[in-house]
Amino acid sequence: MYQFRNDYSVGCHPVVLEALSAVNTEHVVGYGADPYTQKCADLIRELCGTPNADVQFMVGGTQTNFTAIAAFLRPWESVLSPVSGHINGHESGAVEATGHKIIPIHTPINGKLSPSLLLPILDECKDKHLTMPRLVYISDATETGSVYTKAELTELSLFCRHHDLFLYLDGARLGCALTSQANDLTLTDIASLTDAFYIGGTKNGALMGEALVITNQALQADFFRIKKQRGAVLAKGWLLGVQFQALLQDGLYFKIAKHAVEVAQYLQGGLKNLGIPMMVESPTNQIFPIVPNSLLPQLDKLCTYEVWGKADESHTVIRLVASFATPLDSATGFLKAIKNLT
Amino acid sequence: MYQFRNDYSVGCHPVVLEALSAVNTEHVVGYGADPYTQKCADLIRELCGTPNADVQFMVGGTQTNFTAIAAFLRPWESVLSPVSGHINGHESGAVEATGHKIIPIHTPINGKLSPSLLLPILDECKDKHLTMPRLVYISDATETGSVYTKAELTELSLFCRHHDLFLYLDGARLGCALTSQANDLTLTDIASLTDAFYIGGTKNGALMGEALVITNQALQADFFRIKKQRGAVLAKGWLLGVQFQALLQDGLYFKIAKHAVEVAQYLQGGLKNLGIPMMVESPTNQIFPIVPNSLLPQLDKLCTYEVWGKADESHTVIRLVASFATPLDSATGFLKAIKNLT
Amino acid sequence: MYQFRNDYSVGCHPVVLEALSAVNTEHVVGYGADPYTQKCADLIRELCGTPNADVQFMVGGTQTNFTAIAAFLRPWESVLSPVSGHINGHESGAVEATGHKIIPIHTPINGKLSPSLLLPILDECKDKHLTMPRLVYISDATETGSVYTKAELTELSLFCRHHDLFLYLDGARLGCALTSQANDLTLTDIASLTDAFYIGGTKNGALMGEALVITNQALQADFFRIKKQRGAVLAKGWLLGVQFQALLQDGLYFKIAKHAVEVAQYLQGGLKNLGIPMMVESPTNQIFPIVPNSLLPQLDKLCTYEVWGKADESHTVIRLVASFATPLDSATGFLKAIKNLT
Amino acid sequence: MYQFRNDYSVGCHPVVLEALSAVNTEHVVGYGADPYTQKCADLIRELCGTPNADVQFMVGGTQTNFTAIAAFLRPWESVLSPVSGHINGHESGAVEATGHKIIPIHTPINGKLSPSLLLPILDECKDKHLTMPRLVYISDATETGSVYTKAELTELSLFCRHHDLFLYLDGARLGCALTSQANDLTLTDIASLTDAFYIGGTKNGALMGEALVITNQALQADFFRIKKQRGAVLAKGWLLGVQFQALLQDGLYFKIAKHAVEVAQYLQGGLKNLGIPMMVESPTNQIFPIVPNSLLPQLDKLCTYEVWGKADESHTVIRLVASFATPLDSATGFLKAIKNLT
Repeated sequence: MYQFRNDYSVGCHPVVLEALSAVNTEHVVGYGADPYTQKCADLIRELCGTPNADVQFMVGGTQTNFTAIAAFLRPWESVLSPVSGHINGHESGAVEATGHKIIPIHTPINGKLSPSLLLPILDECKDKHLTMPRLVYISDATETGSVYTKAELTELSLFCRHHDLFLYLDGARLGCALTSQANDLTLTDIASLTDAFYIGGTKNGALMGEALVITNQALQADFFRIKKQRGAVLAKGWLLGVQFQALLQDGLYFKIAKHAVEVAQYLQGGLKNLGIPMMVESPTNQIFPIVPNSLLPQLDKLCTYEVWGKADESHTVIRLVASFATPLDSATGFLKAIKNLT
Repeated sequence: MYQFRNDYSVGCHPVVLEALSAVNTEHVVGYGADPYTQKCADLIRELCGTPNADVQFMVGGTQTNFTAIAAFLRPWESVLSPVSGHINGHESGAVEATGHKIIPIHTPINGKLSPSLLLPILDECKDKHLTMPRLVYISDATETGSVYTKAELTELSLFCRHHDLFLYLDGARLGCALTSQANDLTLTDIASLTDAFYIGGTKNGALMGEALVITNQALQADFFRIKKQRGAVLAKGWLLGVQFQALLQDGLYFKIAKHAVEVAQYLQGGLKNLGIPMMVESPTNQIFPIVPNSLLPQLDKLCTYEVWGKADESHTVIRLVASFATPLDSATGFLKAIKNLT
Repeated sequence: MYQFRNDYSVGCHPVVLEALSAVNTEHVVGYGADPYTQKCADLIRELCGTPNADVQFMVGGTQTNFTAIAAFLRPWESVLSPVSGHINGHESGAVEATGHKIIPIHTPINGKLSPSLLLPILDECKDKHLTMPRLVYISDATETGSVYTKAELTELSLFCRHHDLFLYLDGARLGCALTSQANDLTLTDIASLTDAFYIGGTKNGALMGEALVITNQALQADFFRIKKQRGAVLAKGWLLGVQFQALLQDGLYFKIAKHAVEVAQYLQGGLKNLGIPMMVESPTNQIFPIVPNSLLPQLDKLCTYEVWGKADESHTVIRLVASFATPLDSATGFLKAIKNLT
Repeated sequence: MYQFRNDYSVGCHPVVLEALSAVNTEHVVGYGADPYTQKCADLIRELCGTPNADVQFMVGGTQTNFTAIAAFLRPWESVLSPVSGHINGHESGAVEATGHKIIPIHTPINGKLSPSLLLPILDECKDKHLTMPRLVYISDATETGSVYTKAELTELSLFCRHHDLFLYLDGARLGCALTSQANDLTLTDIASLTDAFYIGGTKNGALMGEALVITNQALQADFFRIKKQRGAVLAKGWLLGVQFQALLQDGLYFKIAKHAVEVAQYLQGGLKNLGIPMMVESPTNQIFPIVPNSLLPQLDKLCTYEVWGKADESHTVIRLVASFATPLDSATGFLKAIKNLT
C-alpha cells in the first residue's frame, strides 16, 4: 500500500525521537518553565526576527486555534474565516464553544482571503446589533494546499491594521507553504505581517506540538493562565521544546517539508500527465485529483487516501498527501500502478 | 540533588519509550481510530470489568476533567468539589470556563467528601434560583495523598445514586491510591461505584495521557465530538493507546505506582522518626512534612520539593513526592542528610 | 410623518395598559410564581391544544431564542438556521455566546427552510470532526415577511423527527403570520408540529414579553434554573402574564395582528399599482419596496422606514412595517403622497 | 395580611405609571436610541458628577451583573465576591455561565468585604495555575442589609486600584443604602470610588430596570454589542429611560427609599423592644428577626415574609422587607399584633 492518507500518520522524525530519548531520564521542571522550552522559544524568536514575541507551545492545532482566539478576543468580537477554514469546518465548533461567532467568507477554491472579500462584511457589521469582527483567520498553506504570496499577505496585513483587525495565521502546514515553489514569504515576513501565527509540528515531523508565536505584544498578557484553563499546558512541557529544537535548530523542519512538497508535486505532475485533472492546482504537499468513481475500488487496494468530495455524478475528488515519511519511490511506484490501471 | 518535586518531572518509563519507538515508523490511522487505541480500550474495559464502558484517551488531567464535565452536565448544573479539589484550585477556572459553577465543599484535611458534607448543600439547592448540583468530583488519591476506603466510596456512590448525582473520580494518582497500604479498592470497584473516572498516565510512567473510563452509558453519547471541540483529540492518537498498553498489559502500571508509594512511605516514616511532623498522614506517594523555616535554605540545596503552605509563623508545610523514577536510595540518602542537619 | 419604521415603536395596546394599571398596587409573589402567570400559561396551553406544554414567559426575543437553545442542546450540538435568520444576523452572536455553532443555510429570498436544503448539511455532518446539528431554527413570519404553509411546516416537521432534530419556531411575528391571507396554519398546528416556539408579544401589542411554549416534554426539565441563569426571569414576573392574558383572552392578539397585516397589504398593493416593485412578495405586516435612490430624501420627510439593502446602483430596498398602532389612514395618506412624488 | 415579603411585590410607583402612560402612544425609536433614554442618561451622569460615564439601562439585576462582568473581564480573570453575594448564591450560576470563576470570600455576617479579607486570596492567586482575580463584587446595601461607610468604601477602592482590580457595586438596593442613617456616602462618592455600579429600579419603584453606570472609561467600549448579545437590550428601550426619569428627576427615588428604610427601622426597633433579637443589626429596609419556630404558624396568617435560615433547633431567622408600598401603618399594626401573640 502506498501511504497518502495524511501527513500525521506516522510517529516522529528519527531525529526527534532521539532527542526525546536523550532527555527521557532527566529531571526537568514542569509546565514549560524548563530550560529546553526557553531555549527553543529563543530560537524561534531568532528565526522569526521577533525578539519580543511570546512563544507558546501547545499540543495540537484545534487547541492552539481556540486558545489563541479566546485569549485575543472580547466576548462580542467575531472571527472572519474562509468557509473552508479549519476552524469553521473541522474543529467541531471549538471556536464557538469559547463563545465567539465565526463569520464564514466565501472564497475562490484556493481558500484564500483578500480585502475585497472582507470589506462588505465589515460594512454590514457596523450595525451594532451584530458582532464586531476583530480577527481574520487564514491558513498557509490553505486547506486546499494553496499559499499566500508576499504581495497578498502584505495587502491583507495592511487591510487588517487599517481596520483594527488581528491577523492570525494557522500554520499547521507552514513548513510546506514556505518551501513551496509558489512561495516568496519567509518566517520573518510572516512574523512581521501577522499578529500571531503558529508553526505546526504535528504535520511536519513531531509526535505532537504546535508553536504559537504572538508577535503583537498587546495580545501576550497572561497567556499562560488561559492556556492552563483550556487544557493546553502539557505537564511535561519540555517534550514540546525538545521536539521543536530538534526540528528547527539545523533546518530539519524545512528540509523535510520541502521533501514532502516535492513528492506531492511529482505526484501531481505525473497524474496530470496521465490525464487526471485536479480540483485545484496545489503547490504544496496535498493534491486533489478528480478521479472516475470506477477507479475508487482499485485505488482502495493501491493506496491510502481521503475522499474530499463529489466532483460530479461519476467523479470524485480525492486527497493525496505526502509527508517527511513518504519516499519519492512511493510516488514513482504509485504513478506506474495508476498508469497500468487507466 | 534528591528529586522530590513531583511525579511528572521525567519523561516516561523505559518500557513506554520502547513501545513508542517500536511503532514510530508505522503508518497508522489518526484521531484514535487505530487498532492500538482500540486494543488498549478493550484491555481497560477488561481490567475494569466493564464491557460497556467507553474509554477515551486524552492528553492531560485538566483537559480530561473539563471535557468530561462539560460533556456530562446541562448548563444549569453544577459540580460539588472539595475546596482542595484540583478543579477548584489548580486548573485556572477550566470548569467555569465551560460554564459550570463549582460549589466548593469544606472537608477535613484529607480532602475527602462524604454524604454528610454534601447533604446540606443539596437542601440549599432545592431553591430554583440556584444551580442544580449534578456531579460530585472526587480524586483518589486526594490532593493531600489520602485514599478512599471501599466502605467510604460505596457510601458516597449510594448517596449519589439516591440523589441523582453523577460520581466522577479524578485518577491522576489512581495507581498510587490503589497500591497504598490504606487501600482496599480495586479498579473493578471503582468502575462499578462511579459514573466515570480516569486512569492517570502523566503522573505514573507515561509521557502524557489519561484514560477516561465512562461507565455510565447515558453519558457516552457523542463523546468524540466534544473531545474534538475541546482540543482533546490527539492527531496521532495511537501514541496514547500504545503507552497505556505498555503500562497496563503486564501490570507495570501498578508495579511502578507501588514503588513510588513505598519510597514515599519510607520517607514519611523516616522523617517522623526524626521528629518531623506531617500536616496529614498520607498513605500514598506524596507526603507533607512540616519543617522549621530555618531548614528551608538547606533543603533547597539538598533536594527539589514544593512549598505547600505556611504552617505557622516559623514552620512551613512542604510536599515531597516519589515516582517510578525515584530510587529508594534517594530516600535513604535524603534521610541521612536530614539527620545530619537536624 | 407616517410611521412605518417597525412594529415595536409605541408602548402597548391600551387594553394591555389598563390591565397593568389594574394590578399595579396589588401585592403579588415574584419570579412568575403568581396566579396571573399561571392562569395565562393555562390559557396558552388551551389555545395551543397542548395540555402538557411548559409555558415560559420571557422579556425579549433574543433572550428567548438563546435561553431556549442553550437549554435544549448539548455542547457539541449546533443549530441549522437560514442565513437570514434573526439569530444568525441580528443578535450579536447571542447563540454562539452560549457555545453553539449556527450553521447558516442559504435559502430563497423568502427565508424559508425545507428538507432539501437541510439534507446535504446532515450528510456532511456525519463526520465526527464537525458539530452535530440538532435544532432547526425557523421563524414564522420570516425576516422577509413570508409564512410557512401547513404542508411546508408538516414536511419540515416530519423531516426533523426522522433525523432527530428539534424544530424551533421563532414567533416574534406569529400573530401576523397566522392572520395572513397566505396562512393555513393554526396555533394548534404549530404546537403539534414543533418542539418549541414562542408567541411574540413585543411586536404585537405588549410593552415587552414573549411566551415560549415547550411542547416536547423532554425539553422541559429545570427550565426555570437556566432562565434565571440567563437573566430571563423578571422579578415582577406577573407583568408578562397580565399582558398576555389581556392580549389572548378575547382574541385581541389576533385582531390587532390582522389589522397590521391588512394595512401593510394595502400599502403593498398600492405601491405596486404605482409601479414600485417589491424585493419579495410579503403576505404579512412587513413589506419591502424597491425604490429609486432619488426618492429617498423625500421619503425621509414623509415617513419613518428602514433601509433594508441595496437593490442595484440606483435602487434601494426599504422596509415598511405596520402594527396595531398604524391606522389605515396612514397607508392611504402615504400612498397619496407617494403618488404625488412619482 | 401585612406585606413584608420583599421590595418587588407590587408594580410601580404611581408617578412611574403615569409617566409610562403619558408616552404610551408616541412613536419612539427602539433599542435605547431614543431621546428619553438619552435625557435620563444625562441626568444620571449629572447626579453622579461623572460627565464621562456610560449609562446603560437593563431590565434586571442578574442580567446587569453578568453582562457587566462578561464585558469587563478576560476569560482567565475571576471575581472576588462575598460568600453571601447575590451573584454567588442567588443567580443560578449566571456569572460562571459566562465563563468566569467566582472566588467566594468569607465575611462577617454583615456581608461586607475589606482589604484584609482580599489580600490572602491575591497572594494565593499569584500562582499562574489559578485564575487572575480582577473584579471585586460588592453590594450596597448588602444581602443582609448593611451599608458601607465612606471610609470603608474609600479603603476598598484604594486597595482595588493598587492591585489592579475593578470595583463593581451592585446597587439593587442602593436607594435604601444611601438613605440609611448609617450611610455617609453620596451617589457622587460611589461613582468616583467604583469602576461601575448600578442604580436599582426594580426594588425601588420601577416596573423593572437597572441603570448601570460605567465610570471607568476603559470598560465602556462596545457595551451595546454585548448587551444585545446577552439579551439585555429592550426593544422598547425608552420604557426604562422614562421610568428612571420619573424616579430621579425630582428626587422621588430617594424619598421612597427613605420611607422604606424608616418603616423597616421602625419594625426592627419595635421587635427588639418586644425582646425579639436580630440575626444582624440592619440599618436599611430589610430586617432579620430571630423568631421561635412556634411563632411561625401565626406569622403565616399575619404577614408575608421569607424564611432566611435556621438559627438553632428551635429558632428561625426570617426576613421582613419594607418598600415604597409599605405604609407605616403596616408596621404599627404588625407590631401590635405580634405583641398580642408573644
